[in-house]
Amino acid sequence: MKSLESIIRSIEPLNQDSMLLTQQRLDSLTKPPGSLAVLEKMACQLAGIQGKLPITLPNKAILLMAADHGVAVEGVSAFPAEVTEQMVYNFVNGGAAINVLARHANARLILVDVGVKADFPAGLPIRRRKIRKGTDNMRYRPAMERPEVLQALQTGMDMVNELADDGIEVIGLGEMGIANTTASSAITSLLAGKPPAQVVGRGTGIEQKVISQKIRVIEEAVARHKPDPHDVIDVLAKVGGLEIAALAGAVLGAAARRILIILDGFISSAAVLAAYRLCNSVQPYLLASHLSEEPGHAAILQALGLEPCIRLNMRLGEGTGAALGMTLLDAAVKIVNEMATFGEAKVAEAYNAGDKEV
Amino acid sequence: MKSLESIIRSIEPLNQDSMLLTQQRLDSLTKPPGSLAVLEKMACQLAGIQGKLPITLPNKAILLMAADHGVAVEGVSAFPAEVTEQMVYNFVNGGAAINVLARHANARLILVDVGVKADFPAGLPIRRRKIRKGTDNMRYRPAMERPEVLQALQTGMDMVNELADDGIEVIGLGEMGIANTTASSAITSLLAGKPPAQVVGRGTGIEQKVISQKIRVIEEAVARHKPDPHDVIDVLAKVGGLEIAALAGAVLGAAARRILIILDGFISSAAVLAAYRLCNSVQPYLLASHLSEEPGHAAILQALGLEPCIRLNMRLGEGTGAALGMTLLDAAVKIVNEMATFGEAKVAEAYNAGDKEV
Repeated sequence: MKSLESIIRSIEPLNQDSMLLTQQRLDSLTKPPGSLAVLEKMACQLAGIQGKLPITLPNKAILLMAADHGVAVEGVSAFPAEVTEQMVYNFVNGGAAINVLARHANARLILVDVGVKADFPAGLPIRRRKIRKGTDNMRYRPAMERPEVLQALQTGMDMVNELADDGIEVIGLGEMGIANTTASSAITSLLAGKPPAQVVGRGTGIEQKVISQKIRVIEEAVARHKPDPHDVIDVLAKVGGLEIAALAGAVLGAAARRILIILDGFISSAAVLAAYRLCNSVQPYLLASHLSEEPGHAAILQALGLEPCIRLNMRLGEGTGAALGMTLLDAAVKIVNEMATFGEAKVAEAYNAGDKEV
Repeated sequence: MKSLESIIRSIEPLNQDSMLLTQQRLDSLTKPPGSLAVLEKMACQLAGIQGKLPITLPNKAILLMAADHGVAVEGVSAFPAEVTEQMVYNFVNGGAAINVLARHANARLILVDVGVKADFPAGLPIRRRKIRKGTDNMRYRPAMERPEVLQALQTGMDMVNELADDGIEVIGLGEMGIANTTASSAITSLLAGKPPAQVVGRGTGIEQKVISQKIRVIEEAVARHKPDPHDVIDVLAKVGGLEIAALAGAVLGAAARRILIILDGFISSAAVLAAYRLCNSVQPYLLASHLSEEPGHAAILQALGLEPCIRLNMRLGEGTGAALGMTLLDAAVKIVNEMATFGEAKVAEAYNAGDKEV
């Protein structure tokens, strides 16, 4: 079990040789050079992470962290708080959207309880890493203590270490936690420097008056606890969530173990922003999937220098967008490995094929 | 073999009952109502087309029409004209991008020669529907004669009829034809009412001075032949392409046979715009996939009232974007068929679950 600092120190840059050779192969294939654009970038990114040639279809997992939020009592969600627990059973039974889409993407689904406000029976196939039964209500108290944030980060790193040992090469970030768009909005507001009103959205489907309540709760929490935007741990402690901190740890751990990280929507991206502020060198390991309907999501992706490639106006979370992103990454790998070269296919190259700029 | 007019008359609206019942089922599933947004719309669209409940994973094909363009001699493409022929062999041998992505999407690839400037040996597994060996150079002569356009439209309708008889329920539109972004730009300029400079792009990778040449060629062709923008057949004859007209026919035929049509990039979308102007009632059968780098593509999608859901900055054609779109459509079907309902999973519904607006 490595410490946060040693994990951060162990994150290496991507393998530039693998990336260059993969781009060279892509340029030799029977298509206009660069014409598969972002698919080509994905393939090169995976090459830089796998560091082996040719790249191979990666083993994939959705890492779904679940936890409850004390702020749910403020009526900031369209759903009652017990839905977090109920959805854990739904995940176990295979009936949730992420079960369907993880199967579609040929990805394992790993469920981790880092803070659900319930006791699960023995034998339930979940990872039991509960730090506490939900956070406190940020409106009146800090969501959690600083050591709890560190424990959640460690949990994320541990989980990813297990997955890496199991041969997982790509993770998609998933989460479940009623009211966690409120925590994510607060984190995003602080870390991306935007007023709450600019990052708060409809969540799972609240109406305008509830949106106003959500903004008010965040403003009050920030005014009361005064989180230091330059101290990520302080932000996570005062207005964060256990699953969000755990996902931030997973991002650090994944980069340290050379695992490609596929973002999902707003909540997972808030976790990634926290990880990025702890350690910028995670950035080359990140791949955006979809753009959520939540207004704060675009702000985070911009801060991370990422472009979403899927626009389905989804606002579900669980890792559903990340799973769809995996199917595009697989397509990119197949392009590199299965297409013919100009030479093999006896197809004439572009007139300017010798030029750099095509 | 039905005539164009009878095909157009036979296009029916979608089955509203199937759509409504599918949306009701989606609303009963364990996710915030509407939270899968465009995926849900895709599922309902397929339900309206299949007209059966529950919807099923559709049988899919990429319909790839190939033809040559006389205007290629004007140096408007980054590739020499013989690449059209060479790529047909590459498609047959399975080495092109669309071969890889059609396999990824579990779709058949149907190759049709509607006007390649070459003789293919007997036994090559392609559909032989050559109308003529490429179009004339639109800069000096109309690309083709009006009866040739009608024959190409008929070819597209015939091909789709065969596919429908074979049980195909979804087609992706693919094309191959060196210089066909020039024809597509001319068509888009006329049918969408935009000056050529606003719709001409880099195609397969030309430089700025070639872009200027492409614009000049289109302006000259339009000035010389004066196509009537209100007469789609006239536009296709004077500045179109054989594969573009055949795809337009395929769109009409597909709608008439209740086949869902997935657009690809700029060229296929120009064909769809032509079909739409011949018969607006194809619209409910259309599904956009990606947004191409070609500047004219967004203009066409807007004219069709479609939103692209994939943004990979691709500019390859062949049906590659359509194939990726198919993987999203399959995901939508699985969501409907494999998720648990709130009742089945014993998950509490949203507070406002009884309301219409969620």
